[in-house]
Amino acid sequence: MIRSLAELKAQAKELGPRRCVVAAAADPVTLQALSSAQKEGIAKGVLCGPADKISQAASKAGVSLDGFEIKDCPDEEAAIVAVEEVRASGDFLLKGHLPTSSFLGAVLDKEKGLRTGRVLSHIAILEPASLGRLLLVSDGGMNIAPDLVTKLDIINNAIEVAHSLGIEKPKVALLAAVEAVNPKMAETLAWAQITQMAARKQIAGALVDGPLALDLAVSEEAVKIKGVKSDVAGKADVLIVHDIAVGNIFAKGLIYLGGAKACGIVAGAARPVVMLSRADDAETKLNSIALGAVASVV
Amino acid sequence: MIRSLAELKAQAKELGPRRCVVAAAADPVTLQALSSAQKEGIAKGVLCGPADKISQAASKAGVSLDGFEIKDCPDEEAAIVAVEEVRASGDFLLKGHLPTSSFLGAVLDKEKGLRTGRVLSHIAILEPASLGRLLLVSDGGMNIAPDLVTKLDIINNAIEVAHSLGIEKPKVALLAAVEAVNPKMAETLAWAQITQMAARKQIAGALVDGPLALDLAVSEEAVKIKGVKSDVAGKADVLIVHDIAVGNIFAKGLIYLGGAKACGIVAGAARPVVMLSRADDAETKLNSIALGAVASVV
Repeated sequence: MIRSLAELKAQAKELGPRRCVVAAAADPVTLQALSSAQKEGIAKGVLCGPADKISQAASKAGVSLDGFEIKDCPDEEAAIVAVEEVRASGDFLLKGHLPTSSFLGAVLDKEKGLRTGRVLSHIAILEPASLGRLLLVSDGGMNIAPDLVTKLDIINNAIEVAHSLGIEKPKVALLAAVEAVNPKMAETLAWAQITQMAARKQIAGALVDGPLALDLAVSEEAVKIKGVKSDVAGKADVLIVHDIAVGNIFAKGLIYLGGAKACGIVAGAARPVVMLSRADDAETKLNSIALGAVASVV
Repeated sequence: MIRSLAELKAQAKELGPRRCVVAAAADPVTLQALSSAQKEGIAKGVLCGPADKISQAASKAGVSLDGFEIKDCPDEEAAIVAVEEVRASGDFLLKGHLPTSSFLGAVLDKEKGLRTGRVLSHIAILEPASLGRLLLVSDGGMNIAPDLVTKLDIINNAIEVAHSLGIEKPKVALLAAVEAVNPKMAETLAWAQITQMAARKQIAGALVDGPLALDLAVSEEAVKIKGVKSDVAGKADVLIVHDIAVGNIFAKGLIYLGGAKACGIVAGAARPVVMLSRADDAETKLNSIALGAVASVV
């Protein structure tokens, strides 16, 4: 079981280089991150886009293209070519320099895309100082205000990623401001429904409980004080939030104000999807690629 | 300007003991916290409730009642007596051992209560490690899903508390997952409206801007990378959230996973209201009483 980002990277190295297919690779930031991952033995880059532009971007980034494969194609076809390539013989997908909407359009194309029937969702992996384990948080990145069916997809996507980290039976906390089911708080009603679905074995491979306040999700001390009985409380591996604002503000809060390290991935497609942010530091970018590599092993 | 919880406590001491009126004081936990505050010269306790029960609770808590005033009254009148007392000659109110609903019922009583025309709102004060200033977060404790008018009350309450901390022109960030106004994200629409109200000088005594993502609110580095122009971005003193879940999960996240120290207060009544939680540690309780004392100076 992977309990830290250092262990995540070690595991990615151990798996040997996984084929990372980049859509629109003519981007210095992406090439830098991928080059580091390639040097670490985590990824082998397959670069889709115009070969001349990719060369220019590599010069600008100060990285060598030795050891990279290049699929020369026009900019506007880069996403489609990358999705085809990852379907055929790739392990995971990396978004380069193109609009998110065109990128996801290719991923979600009904005939040639990577659809699985589930929605795509973002999973942030946080390493808070002194917790001693990783926390998966979803979804603070893609689904604005998911309905019940989408919430279930989000949960199942997170459970799969947890499994790929070697967490056999992840403890999934459904977060709210309180632990009581309150008819005035819509999320607590959804969490009650989902907890009962889990009790009826409609969610596999995990222990699921909610609503739980954040302290009850992660602090065994708080569990004692409040006297809550739960297989999940105090020991959560996965934190599920009911809308993008909660997940986004919570995770960024821990990263920017709480000293947590982090990385992230988009799950729910037939292959893991890594979307780096320009605001991520080099370590976060490398960790996200390592996560893509680890999550690509089924 | 108070920039840390240590400075908050020092300021409370400097103000000399403020009259802290306790509703239903027969509670060991409350008496312990108040006794510490009294020893530190921060508060002078006025205990409302049955005198015999208060004595018993004090023995149980191992604290002396020397220096406390006692207003002997039946349990069911304790909240009303406390509100009367604080109106007449008290500085701030402390909730003892009684249901929150009866306590707030007395505070909000139309004739004898402490109404000001504003809603009550909870303000958490966080001291994140290494930020170098305090962050006020509201409202993660009282208003579940505030409408626009209530959001304005919440903002104005927080501005007043910031002023009491010596932050002359607090920078108020209206938080969302993104900085774009997105018609699919209701909170970003509300924040656009409120930012424009602030531009029209409908909010006094503060700089207000939103929507802002959390990184843009507190990280000057993120502001540079994203190129956002704002008087607030990167330097926020006050973080306003659009519903209780965001504020609650964000603040507890920083406390339980991010090493932040914290305290809290309820504002919007004619006097500050302190409501301690059993799960708070002794330091948090003392800091909350110090905050009540400081916020009671108008």
